Amino acid sequence: MKLMPSRLQPRDPEFEHRVQASFARQVAMQTLGVTLARVAPGEVELTLPFRVDLTQQHGFLHAGIATAVVDTACGYAALSLMEPGAAVLSVEFKMQLLAPARGAWFQGIGRVVKAGRTLTVVTGELRAFAAARSEATPDGGEMVALFTGTMMAVRDRPELID
Amino acid sequence: MKLMPSRLQPRDPEFEHRVQASFARQVAMQTLGVTLARVAPGEVELTLPFRVDLTQQHGFLHAGIATAVVDTACGYAALSLMEPGAAVLSVEFKMQLLAPARGAWFQGIGRVVKAGRTLTVVTGELRAFAAARSEATPDGGEMVALFTGTMMAVRDRPELID
Amino acid sequence: MKLMPSRLQPRDPEFEHRVQASFARQVAMQTLGVTLARVAPGEVELTLPFRVDLTQQHGFLHAGIATAVVDTACGYAALSLMEPGAAVLSVEFKMQLLAPARGAWFQGIGRVVKAGRTLTVVTGELRAFAAARSEATPDGGEMVALFTGTMMAVRDRPELID
Amino acid sequence: MKLMPSRLQPRDPEFEHRVQASFARQVAMQTLGVTLARVAPGEVELTLPFRVDLTQQHGFLHAGIATAVVDTACGYAALSLMEPGAAVLSVEFKMQLLAPARGAWFQGIGRVVKAGRTLTVVTGELRAFAAARSEATPDGGEMVALFTGTMMAVRDRPELID
Repeated sequence: MKLMPSRLQPRDPEFEHRVQASFARQVAMQTLGVTLARVAPGEVELTLPFRVDLTQQHGFLHAGIATAVVDTACGYAALSLMEPGAAVLSVEFKMQLLAPARGAWFQGIGRVVKAGRTLTVVTGELRAFAAARSEATPDGGEMVALFTGTMMAVRDRPELID
Repeated sequence: MKLMPSRLQPRDPEFEHRVQASFARQVAMQTLGVTLARVAPGEVELTLPFRVDLTQQHGFLHAGIATAVVDTACGYAALSLMEPGAAVLSVEFKMQLLAPARGAWFQGIGRVVKAGRTLTVVTGELRAFAAARSEATPDGGEMVALFTGTMMAVRDRPELID
Repeated sequence: MKLMPSRLQPRDPEFEHRVQASFARQVAMQTLGVTLARVAPGEVELTLPFRVDLTQQHGFLHAGIATAVVDTACGYAALSLMEPGAAVLSVEFKMQLLAPARGAWFQGIGRVVKAGRTLTVVTGELRAFAAARSEATPDGGEMVALFTGTMMAVRDRPELID
Repeated sequence: MKLMPSRLQPRDPEFEHRVQASFARQVAMQTLGVTLARVAPGEVELTLPFRVDLTQQHGFLHAGIATAVVDTACGYAALSLMEPGAAVLSVEFKMQLLAPARGAWFQGIGRVVKAGRTLTVVTGELRAFAAARSEATPDGGEMVALFTGTMMAVRDRPELID
């Protein structure tokens, strides 16, 4: 799947700071131990170290926690292309679980496929890394989940920021 | 959507205890503060009190946390109909977010639509309740998310239990 | 899943005629032999007789044809609640195939779960009937596919009507 | 999204002929005018010329017809990696519609992301080409729909072939 670069122009020069500031207000991300690793126009990467207290009954990372990481990466990939003043909300998403999520740490990636005025279509993935993070290469890891979703720009609700 | 009662016969008389024991091993559920409210053949309800540390940037319950609750309810709805020895894994799911998830507490419901030998099709929902839990009626609350998914019975991997 | 009647108020008194007129312009429906059986606010039913020339390799109704019927029912369920001047487009949908689609005829049902100003969330199903249509009861048939989707109201493009 | 070549080994040396023979039995594909353009291990391409009699109310290719093409491409991408004797059925899929499907012809592409023993995860897309087919380049066209789905190998039902 190729990205469409001509459609990935940020409409807000402060997009990187804006994503960082909004991410910092996502208390759930702090609770789960997720950090923001990279923000580019239409593409965001998050990092989650493995934690036993986030596992399901077989000791794998819970699919819902995996979803939280990828949904957040995709939401911010969408927000990175929105004009100032718009807030982002998830409309729907589908997670396809390819393999049990086990490893030392996980990478959640979100990418914009198409950015419309109201709706942004995104794809994402969760990659699992067996080795400690410093040894990982950017292309490494195993894709354990595949995500497609629809994000929405909300403009007329002043209580919703970014 | 009507359930199909004839297909909702448990194949394990110990289904309720089995779901309870497996849920107790889902450490992520304890971390999130989720409790198991009801187990019936092909139907499971979970309860999650609102917590600020599970919110996204606008103060609503994070969509990934909502997914964790409904996915777990649906997985155990599927497991409640599986024969002894089978373990349940999520293959895929879609979450449709209908309204921001705000409220005093949330109910995650999972229901089996069709239980096959290998695959079980489930639907679920997250309901939000404004008032404290004791005042809620069974039919109350607002449906804030709708879930459809596919669960799989895994039989040949002794390390996967329930 | 219960419908929310208070949200299912048509904003166009001519909604039934409008759906009928738009359906008549869907040439694909004529090609497939689909007829419009019922239009109510937020709910539409279509009928498709079985035809060998719409089957896949095992002789069942092709899943894509099943999708065409349910997507159309859901799109018109959404349109039935839109104000005059809005056109409907499918944003995304998921089909969950429960059983091979075989039978003498099929019923595609679309229902609105939530009607927002821009987006409408819908669920649908395909039901298969073994006997000839006149003998079928309204509640009969077997649910062979389950659909959830997002429909969009498009207002600013004069070339798109209904 | 990168394919995983090591997992894309055909288990049937006759995979190409097998896909061709099964496609020839899909009467719906003949009805819609779809042809099989390319079969490779884990990847299949189909071609559909635009036809007015397959359009929805605005004159675009109907989303259900688009689904039929991509679902078929994905099903055969999955079948191309299955051992002799297995038949393929669609379990579920999601279509994300990126742009109205208009053009002189369309290309439906299906690719295997992960081939398990029972389930195969696939992604697909529909590409639209404005110019006549002979002028198109392999990389050309516009992606108008994105598909993810789950295909199943069925082995124990002698009436289901390929």
